[in-house]
Amino acid sequence: MSEQFTFELTGVDGAARTGIVHTPRGDIRTPAFMPVGTAATVKAMLPESVRSTGAGIILGNTYHLMLRPGAERIARLGGLHKFMRWDGPILTDSGGFQVMSLAKLREITEDGVRFHSHIDGSPEFLSPERAMEIQRLLGSDIQMVLDECPAFPATEAQIESSLALSMRWAKQSKAAFGVQPGRACFGIVQGGVYPHLRRRSAEHLIDIGFDGYAVGGLAVGEGQSVMFEVLDVTVPHLPAGRPRYLMGVGKPDDIVGAVLRGIDMFDCVLPTRSGRNGQAFTRAGTLNLRNARHVDDSGPLDPHCSCPACREFSRAYLHHVVKANEIIAAMLLTWHNLTYYQDLMAGLRNAIAAGGVRDFAQTCLRSWGAETASSAN
Amino acid sequence: MSEQFTFELTGVDGAARTGIVHTPRGDIRTPAFMPVGTAATVKAMLPESVRSTGAGIILGNTYHLMLRPGAERIARLGGLHKFMRWDGPILTDSGGFQVMSLAKLREITEDGVRFHSHIDGSPEFLSPERAMEIQRLLGSDIQMVLDECPAFPATEAQIESSLALSMRWAKQSKAAFGVQPGRACFGIVQGGVYPHLRRRSAEHLIDIGFDGYAVGGLAVGEGQSVMFEVLDVTVPHLPAGRPRYLMGVGKPDDIVGAVLRGIDMFDCVLPTRSGRNGQAFTRAGTLNLRNARHVDDSGPLDPHCSCPACREFSRAYLHHVVKANEIIAAMLLTWHNLTYYQDLMAGLRNAIAAGGVRDFAQTCLRSWGAETASSAN
Repeated sequence: MSEQFTFELTGVDGAARTGIVHTPRGDIRTPAFMPVGTAATVKAMLPESVRSTGAGIILGNTYHLMLRPGAERIARLGGLHKFMRWDGPILTDSGGFQVMSLAKLREITEDGVRFHSHIDGSPEFLSPERAMEIQRLLGSDIQMVLDECPAFPATEAQIESSLALSMRWAKQSKAAFGVQPGRACFGIVQGGVYPHLRRRSAEHLIDIGFDGYAVGGLAVGEGQSVMFEVLDVTVPHLPAGRPRYLMGVGKPDDIVGAVLRGIDMFDCVLPTRSGRNGQAFTRAGTLNLRNARHVDDSGPLDPHCSCPACREFSRAYLHHVVKANEIIAAMLLTWHNLTYYQDLMAGLRNAIAAGGVRDFAQTCLRSWGAETASSAN
Repeated sequence: MSEQFTFELTGVDGAARTGIVHTPRGDIRTPAFMPVGTAATVKAMLPESVRSTGAGIILGNTYHLMLRPGAERIARLGGLHKFMRWDGPILTDSGGFQVMSLAKLREITEDGVRFHSHIDGSPEFLSPERAMEIQRLLGSDIQMVLDECPAFPATEAQIESSLALSMRWAKQSKAAFGVQPGRACFGIVQGGVYPHLRRRSAEHLIDIGFDGYAVGGLAVGEGQSVMFEVLDVTVPHLPAGRPRYLMGVGKPDDIVGAVLRGIDMFDCVLPTRSGRNGQAFTRAGTLNLRNARHVDDSGPLDPHCSCPACREFSRAYLHHVVKANEIIAAMLLTWHNLTYYQDLMAGLRNAIAAGGVRDFAQTCLRSWGAETASSAN
């Protein structure tokens, strides 16, 4: 265990990198996928089960936790790790993105965002200083600056104006973060689809100085090819010695493409949300367990997977419990999908270390494509 | 492991008994509580977690399984044990009770029950022979005869007429069960609240000859004192050398009272259903975790319980996940409630073996009563 938050780059393969984020709560091997534990739980999973999938870090949502049960309450109860029984590192977002997507009656000013809770309508306020205070109260290991997340699409003028506000908030957030030994503060690069704004944002954040750099404002509807283009013009401006985090991404092929472009960390609700909807990611592509073709299938979901859903149950059983809306369907398919994502990340790390990440990526994409075609029924 | 289904009485204390049901799939220590696994899953639990609570046997519902995924399908897939990954004994009901409570457009004739599925409205038919065939296809270790379950209240004439049909069906069911080495067929005593009809039913079933005897038609609204009165006039007519099963019961104090009257086996949805509704059974009574008094409580749900909910989480956390409708709330509280029920059964078994079941019962009832009073807010 490290006493400090540090990033050790252990291998590169083209633009792709593999390394270790050292934290006092444990190491995170990169490229890393962070399961989303929105409301102090990775939905349908016990913490030990999340750990067993290979996850080294999870994500918590500041917006949800500030509304319920409240940051001060979690602090009184000993912090988020103790509260939810996750003893590994936790990254928290700043709440900014979810204020924009979930809260009601939002008003953005230079000082922050006034909004009303989507739970009970109560008035709330989030400023850069309050966002950092909440994350400190939660005991977050990696804390994100508050930024404004502009809607997509937006004009260049809108993005430029929004970016200017986000950069002022980034500076205030970093100052509010202060000094927290063993914990990290990450900046977030904005700038929409405009290369010069992405570069300006990156350089501005580097001037402030952060422990890691996130790429924000993507996976909001721009499509994979645009997202990859933005990464191509953004990542080269980020320092090699700091972890790079692509927020809210994504599908397995999004992740593979972003790793090839030098991203180290990811989070997404897709494996957990899909699991609750009867969708499974497998080495042969995405399956809908609700589909009648599984009704008599005594074979495993994915013969190469070691999760309980694949090791112990048949596709016929999974089909049955999905159709019957049984909770065990959400439990098993979430467990599987998180295992699949962690296995994918381990595969990417090994391939980078061995210098074969492009071949690995091609093999993945081919196998997913094959099943996607054959399961079009 | 026994090759045959046998019942070994190992201790008596007044009318209460303790013993072992030996089956090829494992022993069942009695008094025993059977968690309900309606649709091939004990809701919100993995099979290994059910086992870890101390459960030696679970119950499956013929009605649900015949409709979805279908008995013939489960048989093709290797039987219910393999399908749902429960390798211990399984008791299945006959489907009769749930046809009456769930299905639509029911018509009862001498031959059986015509009804329409509550899932898709499809026409279905259940006869004594078909009920036993389904249970055989499922691979059930303890199979129940088909009976008619009259509504409560009913007149003596209605009960007498219904009982006559149930006794004819019991004979047909036993004949249809045939010879299945290692598996058992249980008869069901009916007769409403009428002592002479209960006695007539018991004697009739004993004439047919069953491996165990259930008491049916209770816990349908008659109240605990009437239920206990019926047990007082029924159980003495059942053979001492066969297990006695009180169907669909019940609350912890129902179980304690029934054990004092000589019942060996129980099933009820209460611990699992309550767990999904934020209710917890504890040594100090029943708690509603939704109640705001738990919001800042860092203590465990039940300090004497060894389940994950009590060992790893606080009441404040459980309150939070119940309020947020998180799946982990159902998982943890179901696990707790099933552990609580199994601990209660173990306590009863130990108390009977030690000759102190009346003191044990008094202690239980006092502690539940105390909390029920103090938690009236």
